[in-house]
Amino acid sequence: MELSSGTVSPQERIGASNAQPYAESMALFRRAAQVIPCGIYGHQSPAATLPGASPYYAARAEGCRYWDVDGREYLDFICGYGPIVLGYRHPEVEEVAERQRRDGDTFNHPTARMVELAERLVSLVDFASWAVFGKNGSDVTSWAVRVARESTRRKKILRLSGGYHGIDPWCNHSPAGIIEEDRAHVHTFHWNDLEGFAQLMRRHAGKVACVIVTPYHHPAFGDSILPARGFLKAIEQKCRDEGVVLILDDIRAGFRLHLGGSHRVFGFSPDIICFSKALGNGHPISAALGRKELRVPASRVFLTGSFWNSAVPMAASLKVLDILERDDVPAKLQRSGQRLREGLERLGTEFGKDILGSGPAAVPFYRFNDESNFRQWQRFCAYAMEGEGGVGAFFHPHHNWFLSAAHTDADIDQALEIARVAMQRTLEETI
Amino acid sequence: MELSSGTVSPQERIGASNAQPYAESMALFRRAAQVIPCGIYGHQSPAATLPGASPYYAARAEGCRYWDVDGREYLDFICGYGPIVLGYRHPEVEEVAERQRRDGDTFNHPTARMVELAERLVSLVDFASWAVFGKNGSDVTSWAVRVARESTRRKKILRLSGGYHGIDPWCNHSPAGIIEEDRAHVHTFHWNDLEGFAQLMRRHAGKVACVIVTPYHHPAFGDSILPARGFLKAIEQKCRDEGVVLILDDIRAGFRLHLGGSHRVFGFSPDIICFSKALGNGHPISAALGRKELRVPASRVFLTGSFWNSAVPMAASLKVLDILERDDVPAKLQRSGQRLREGLERLGTEFGKDILGSGPAAVPFYRFNDESNFRQWQRFCAYAMEGEGGVGAFFHPHHNWFLSAAHTDADIDQALEIARVAMQRTLEETI
Repeated sequence: MELSSGTVSPQERIGASNAQPYAESMALFRRAAQVIPCGIYGHQSPAATLPGASPYYAARAEGCRYWDVDGREYLDFICGYGPIVLGYRHPEVEEVAERQRRDGDTFNHPTARMVELAERLVSLVDFASWAVFGKNGSDVTSWAVRVARESTRRKKILRLSGGYHGIDPWCNHSPAGIIEEDRAHVHTFHWNDLEGFAQLMRRHAGKVACVIVTPYHHPAFGDSILPARGFLKAIEQKCRDEGVVLILDDIRAGFRLHLGGSHRVFGFSPDIICFSKALGNGHPISAALGRKELRVPASRVFLTGSFWNSAVPMAASLKVLDILERDDVPAKLQRSGQRLREGLERLGTEFGKDILGSGPAAVPFYRFNDESNFRQWQRFCAYAMEGEGGVGAFFHPHHNWFLSAAHTDADIDQALEIARVAMQRTLEETI
Repeated sequence: MELSSGTVSPQERIGASNAQPYAESMALFRRAAQVIPCGIYGHQSPAATLPGASPYYAARAEGCRYWDVDGREYLDFICGYGPIVLGYRHPEVEEVAERQRRDGDTFNHPTARMVELAERLVSLVDFASWAVFGKNGSDVTSWAVRVARESTRRKKILRLSGGYHGIDPWCNHSPAGIIEEDRAHVHTFHWNDLEGFAQLMRRHAGKVACVIVTPYHHPAFGDSILPARGFLKAIEQKCRDEGVVLILDDIRAGFRLHLGGSHRVFGFSPDIICFSKALGNGHPISAALGRKELRVPASRVFLTGSFWNSAVPMAASLKVLDILERDDVPAKLQRSGQRLREGLERLGTEFGKDILGSGPAAVPFYRFNDESNFRQWQRFCAYAMEGEGGVGAFFHPHHNWFLSAAHTDADIDQALEIARVAMQRTLEETI
């Protein structure tokens, strides 16, 4: 691919069929549009990344790389939007999963894996004395909220403005299909606005069942924001004072920052913690863990699903936790993430176009510092995806990225080389 | 095991540690009770089957048989509570799943499998022009209800009294953690009570978003009841007249009665159909399919999950559908189910203790005809689980059973032999 093609934007290139890098993705998408509303919906929708200028369908993956249906290769910085913490198709995890599969997966009963995994998680999370399992983040965040309502016999849920806790009516960000009763008792406060939070607590004194927070603020289309000193501890204290259940939604960052839950990094202690994503390294599982005081209400709030006790994801998760611990993966992710951040910052300085990283280096959010509409940054990410010599870097333009333990220094450096070319092209087209 | 032990009830046997058939299950359960609310919760809870007198944990499975953690073997008539329609670890399905796994499962994008599966399902279901996917039944029933609300801009949901549509607040059977607003616009009618349904429709005229039905009534702790002639067609007609969305929850029976959806058996046509369970033969997947008129609201109501586009369950489902069609599995299940029903009825006649079967033979509900409290029937099921010579039959005392394509005539006949001994013991202990 010649550098001179950098003067044609990826979007314009889409029109030139003989240079269409995503032809097979587009062909599949046209078929999908016939039989699936939006073709691809939800967080993997092309509308949420780069319509017309990114791959739409994956074909295979290994480690920190994947290939799309057009045969193009990507150094991956999204990791399946979080689940892939050890790398795709991790041999040790897959060996354990395969061994469990030889016995079976979905049965009439749970297996010993469920007990072992609950024991393991409870031993990892300092405040927890019990665990339950689901398949998806929403399964456990929504259940946790109900446990809080059952425990307190109160209705109000206080949550972060712009936070994401899943697709259920009490929390999803869209008004479509939602009725006013769904959110009649859900109230929002702003991140790091302790006074606003305190006001909200006073306004609804005696009526608040729970406060649900993420360990730091990680909105889409916006910088990640770490908690101000004492913010989460102060929320915790107010919850204790008022008998309010504090729920930590650690689905996005869980196990990437600290094996015992991200509250350990930010110095506070919730009553319930929700995990999913990284727990199974791609195997479908979620979990909620809680304090012993909540065991009785937790045992009353109905929770079940046809595949929620399946053995393979639990066996895989046990192995994932072993490896995370053995290899001190959170520290490794921090180092690789830091290498990436420093490299991108150097690149920005060199080209006079600052790249701003926010959030933990292991789960970073990036954008150009001089724009808030992501327009040029989208071009940069599109050029990175297109890459060099058939190898791109999957840089998401407006969602936080994820590092995995499979990213070596050489992978990071290769991604930085791809970023350099993408930066050149981006700046060339706008000069 | 000697027949004379039949004078000791299974429950009493639990106390005799040297004769405890479920010792390893109980030991695991004691560990579980330390770290999991209720030890086992939801539909697999021992409290929902036979506390102290059934296996609690599975170890492995193959075809129509499984083994518990005590090494005991069972002829299975629950099939994982529905998912296992072709038999556990079906070689053709697992081969396809393994091939997909070598490429990968959870990616940044969907795979071609999602498009292929949507195309396949839409071609099977007569009224449907689109499909979406989840992991669990609740994922799609709750989403379907929201699509109906979005489409109609109305709030009311009419549903069957005693019907099961999942764990979400609008429908779950427990009041724990639910607030009044969750169900403010949910109203119930009784199965086969067309006049009651019509009254409810009149009472809420112009406010009803959807009616959600199962293809026949399959409550737990109660006989399955087929629709009276014209009942579902009349509901459909009223929905059409009033612009109400008719949702068929076919999660339990789907693909066991008819490949194109159970409405084909009962002569009506819904607007949305929800599948899960049998679709993946144990791989976690659910789907909702709908009419073209609902495509726009369907595209607006947010739907996503970390693992919902994963490729392996979709690849498996494609193969499951092929086999269901190739082998005409619904007809096969009907034949095996009929053999089981006739055998159990003969047994009842022979012992002067009628066994009443209800619902489709492929998804039957059984109980003793002369009791409604299930007391003796629980003993019968416990004796069947205990079985003969280390082989029992997993007969659920108060949930419908499921047949699978792996049940041969010889398996059914062996189960009937186990049932004969269980019947003898049950009657001996109560004489």
